[in-house]
Amino acid sequence: MTFAVFTETARPFIEGRLPAGIDAHWFETFDELPPLMAQAEIAWIDVFREGVNVAQAVREAPRLRWLNTVAAGINHLPLDLMAQRGTVLTNGAGLHAGTIAEYALLGMLTIVKGYREVVRAQDRHEWLHEPPGRRELAGTSALIVGAGAIGGRIGQLLRVFDVGVTEVRRSGAPGTLRVDEWRSRLADFDWVIVAVPSTPDTHGMIGAAEFAAMKPGAVIMNFARGEVIETEALLAAIDSGHLGGAFLDVTDPEPLPPEHPLWARENVHISMHLSGRSQETIFQKGAERFLGNLDRYLAGEPMEHVVDLQAGY
Amino acid sequence: MTFAVFTETARPFIEGRLPAGIDAHWFETFDELPPLMAQAEIAWIDVFREGVNVAQAVREAPRLRWLNTVAAGINHLPLDLMAQRGTVLTNGAGLHAGTIAEYALLGMLTIVKGYREVVRAQDRHEWLHEPPGRRELAGTSALIVGAGAIGGRIGQLLRVFDVGVTEVRRSGAPGTLRVDEWRSRLADFDWVIVAVPSTPDTHGMIGAAEFAAMKPGAVIMNFARGEVIETEALLAAIDSGHLGGAFLDVTDPEPLPPEHPLWARENVHISMHLSGRSQETIFQKGAERFLGNLDRYLAGEPMEHVVDLQAGY
Repeated sequence: MTFAVFTETARPFIEGRLPAGIDAHWFETFDELPPLMAQAEIAWIDVFREGVNVAQAVREAPRLRWLNTVAAGINHLPLDLMAQRGTVLTNGAGLHAGTIAEYALLGMLTIVKGYREVVRAQDRHEWLHEPPGRRELAGTSALIVGAGAIGGRIGQLLRVFDVGVTEVRRSGAPGTLRVDEWRSRLADFDWVIVAVPSTPDTHGMIGAAEFAAMKPGAVIMNFARGEVIETEALLAAIDSGHLGGAFLDVTDPEPLPPEHPLWARENVHISMHLSGRSQETIFQKGAERFLGNLDRYLAGEPMEHVVDLQAGY
Repeated sequence: MTFAVFTETARPFIEGRLPAGIDAHWFETFDELPPLMAQAEIAWIDVFREGVNVAQAVREAPRLRWLNTVAAGINHLPLDLMAQRGTVLTNGAGLHAGTIAEYALLGMLTIVKGYREVVRAQDRHEWLHEPPGRRELAGTSALIVGAGAIGGRIGQLLRVFDVGVTEVRRSGAPGTLRVDEWRSRLADFDWVIVAVPSTPDTHGMIGAAEFAAMKPGAVIMNFARGEVIETEALLAAIDSGHLGGAFLDVTDPEPLPPEHPLWARENVHISMHLSGRSQETIFQKGAERFLGNLDRYLAGEPMEHVVDLQAGY
């Protein structure tokens, strides 16, 4: 029997569909984990806001050969230790792309139409006679830094809105910018949309120099991890009037404390790391991916969506 | 010389581009209009929120042969009198399609993600830990009633979001529903999006029977005119819990008085007839259309975007 530990949330989607030979154990809270992880060969752990505890649970799982998550970001895990032990990590890369891309469009449309003012006016029962935003997405230009599943889907949606889309790709495919090219082209874009993986390479990737190089009035959007943008530099670029605005699904620090200055800047939009979770089907999609991989694991075949523990994504 | 009266707003886009023989007169306020309209052969009048005054100005313009507007809705004008006098009316049908369609997507995304709660939480400096909306546009289905330029563009955008789109078209083209078919199919759709012209035929087109036929939890969206939906029936359908929500760019009455019950319903979204005007380029686009038509007018050729005064659109 293969000892396997599963988050209770996955249960409705996989129980009864597990192959023979899987000895399934379910957990709801982290208190239940230590004795289970001591024996686990396979674990699917997804409890939001418990990143630190997941890392600890993995450290205390000497027999763990495969860890699965529906999350895309995995930078809270002890990747070095897992590499050393030969633990394979599969993640949810791509499963969130659709809902995050929907959120990105929501953010951009909110900004061009000044829609928060409309929401606030309705709350006051006040009929606005002049539009608080008079821009159109159509005809604007966007740079997508990190064109994986999320960035790629954002680009696909933006093109039908008649937005000029340029992607940064390592591959340097035609019509895209390479990793060493995009900084010199920042002045060309109305939108800079960041959707890179969170790795040591991307921490602080957008700072004072990048903001200064952006087009006056341009908007920065972050759907990666808060640490990718230097918060102090962002505040300075906003306060100087150079930057037109920011849409931050993720922030540094996170969560933002109530007194943090980002909350109150009128052209900063904070969506509280909700974009990827604003969907109902992530565990359903994740279960299909997991069950496919489980068959491969048991057959000794390579699994899909395996994280490169060295690269960190 | 042809006596022509122009709204001052159009001036930057047409002055200096008018052909010889046009005796141009500009006005800023309605007080200036009566003496001008007494002589006008051509008039381009666009002053928002002054529908009643435009009608009066047209009544007092016995020589008027051509009236132009960038508006799409023209139901405030004395169409019968204009038909009787042989006054040709050209309007801005289609010029607003892009920005209204952007607004429709903004509304739909706001609803599925519960985004108003995010706006309000930011205003309170509160980090939400759970998404207020967990739906995706992808996988839902939309009926577009009135698939002209606006409805057609909404459909085009929705398809790339993986929304199943069905249009109501008079032509009964394949894959669409005819005018006598859509009511019996209302239960099939998560979204019913109304973008018909405002005519006597479409007044009260959506009432108690239509709401009852809609799928439980479905959302009605109105980008036509307020009168197309029966407000009392809408309130009843919302209050019974049958309808999931309403996004109303237009309302009846309009503007909504502060005490109107629509304002405070938590799943009613009011965008104050702002969608078509949430753009900067309407007069620029309208000027290109007008100047093309002016050449045709002077050459005695048929103009484009002429309103059918009998049909009312």
